[in-house]
Amino acid sequence: MVHVIDIADPADPRLGDYRDLNSSDRRPDLPGGKGLVIAEGVLVVQRMLASRFTPNSLLGVDRRLTELSADLEGVDVPFYRTTADVMAQVVGFHLNRGVLAAAHRPPALDVEDVLRDARTVAVLEGVNDHENIGSMFRNAAGLGVDAILFGAAVADPLYRRAVRVSMGHALRVPFAQIPEWPRGLNILRDRGFQLISLTPNPAAPTLAEAMTGERVALLLGAEGPGLTEDAMRVTDVRARIPMSAGTDSLNVATAAAMAFYERIRTGS
Amino acid sequence: MVHVIDIADPADPRLGDYRDLNSSDRRPDLPGGKGLVIAEGVLVVQRMLASRFTPNSLLGVDRRLTELSADLEGVDVPFYRTTADVMAQVVGFHLNRGVLAAAHRPPALDVEDVLRDARTVAVLEGVNDHENIGSMFRNAAGLGVDAILFGAAVADPLYRRAVRVSMGHALRVPFAQIPEWPRGLNILRDRGFQLISLTPNPAAPTLAEAMTGERVALLLGAEGPGLTEDAMRVTDVRARIPMSAGTDSLNVATAAAMAFYERIRTGS
Repeated sequence: MVHVIDIADPADPRLGDYRDLNSSDRRPDLPGGKGLVIAEGVLVVQRMLASRFTPNSLLGVDRRLTELSADLEGVDVPFYRTTADVMAQVVGFHLNRGVLAAAHRPPALDVEDVLRDARTVAVLEGVNDHENIGSMFRNAAGLGVDAILFGAAVADPLYRRAVRVSMGHALRVPFAQIPEWPRGLNILRDRGFQLISLTPNPAAPTLAEAMTGERVALLLGAEGPGLTEDAMRVTDVRARIPMSAGTDSLNVATAAAMAFYERIRTGS
Repeated sequence: MVHVIDIADPADPRLGDYRDLNSSDRRPDLPGGKGLVIAEGVLVVQRMLASRFTPNSLLGVDRRLTELSADLEGVDVPFYRTTADVMAQVVGFHLNRGVLAAAHRPPALDVEDVLRDARTVAVLEGVNDHENIGSMFRNAAGLGVDAILFGAAVADPLYRRAVRVSMGHALRVPFAQIPEWPRGLNILRDRGFQLISLTPNPAAPTLAEAMTGERVALLLGAEGPGLTEDAMRVTDVRARIPMSAGTDSLNVATAAAMAFYERIRTGS
């Protein structure tokens, strides 16, 4: 059972994990960062409780405690109950979702483990925007993508904003770092994945034409520069999303969603 | 030729259209609003110059004037040249894009005109978020959608944030308000459009199965509530995006992008 602890003093040291969220702990993934993962709002807290990220504590108003009561059965952590006003003083801004949970990062997953039962994975290179990363996890969860792998220079998917935009799916969809980028892509080839690079090149075959593998890895680069030539060279095929002539590339999370859609459409 | 006018005083009355952008003119579409459309950055200003929105003036730093010189040939408006610091004082925040253009809203387009040569249109109901509206215009431009029609309660696509997120395509993709929602949808039926409502209902046919029309109208409702039953009842078919079981709906702009993709994939 969750232990409800009423707190009235915003300076209470037990609330350290939640203090000044906007200004502290901006890079929780780096050495020296707090290493925390913060979930905001009932839905995302529920997803955290159902994930491998076990919260150290929760902080919220009474109404949210009530809403989460079923999810908190058997959860042996403190719920610091307070007012919206005290919460705002602690976190440093008004938080209209009324509940937060803080977890420490568990050890990173291994590529081999993540791939074991996967049929469809996304592989990201240079996607360094938290909102795009969050959207990708949300879309992956919705469209049957089993895991997300990271090449070079990808934003931290456990950053608060990414977790929020992902609707908590950053805590549920497995992800892992590929060692030795881009050569490490051979781990996927060895396991029978067809490696497909997304390209804006209008001379490339379409995704629908190119996607033939039983297991598929979809490689996506940042909006603008796209995938590096070094990464594309390791893949089996370069494919494009059919687009109107003369327009810019799509947002990278949108392009990813279309690749995921093409995969689920044809029966992934 | 553009007339370059150097301005050093942030209080110069000629800069009124650009003053306090964050706090003034939040609803430029309403009576009493300034009725302005603001383009930010070189790319969006270029799209404005190539659109039916003729700027009254531009405000920017010298480097942006140089970058826009080819686009500004034959454009008979003032370019108020100043420093980044003066620009920040005028608009009320630091603007790293270095150039703005302000246009008055031209008269709204008529549904009949917008539909004349269109083969694919999106119809929105209750999409009241500027970022989603902006994304939809960007995706429409990229994926061959000819026009966007508005039912009830849709956010202003000409609001600054929507224009920016659309990459300026809110100024290029034609849009019009459907009169008498949802009965006005019959205007589309009379012109031979197949009316397809997007629904999360897992019992519905997929988009790929349902989309058979020569002319197609894709109806999208807000994330969460979705389309109203009243609107769906006027349409020909309800179709879904294939999704993983047990996940939430997708973001509405992402769902729209997938419907647009399905259309262009099958040769719109």
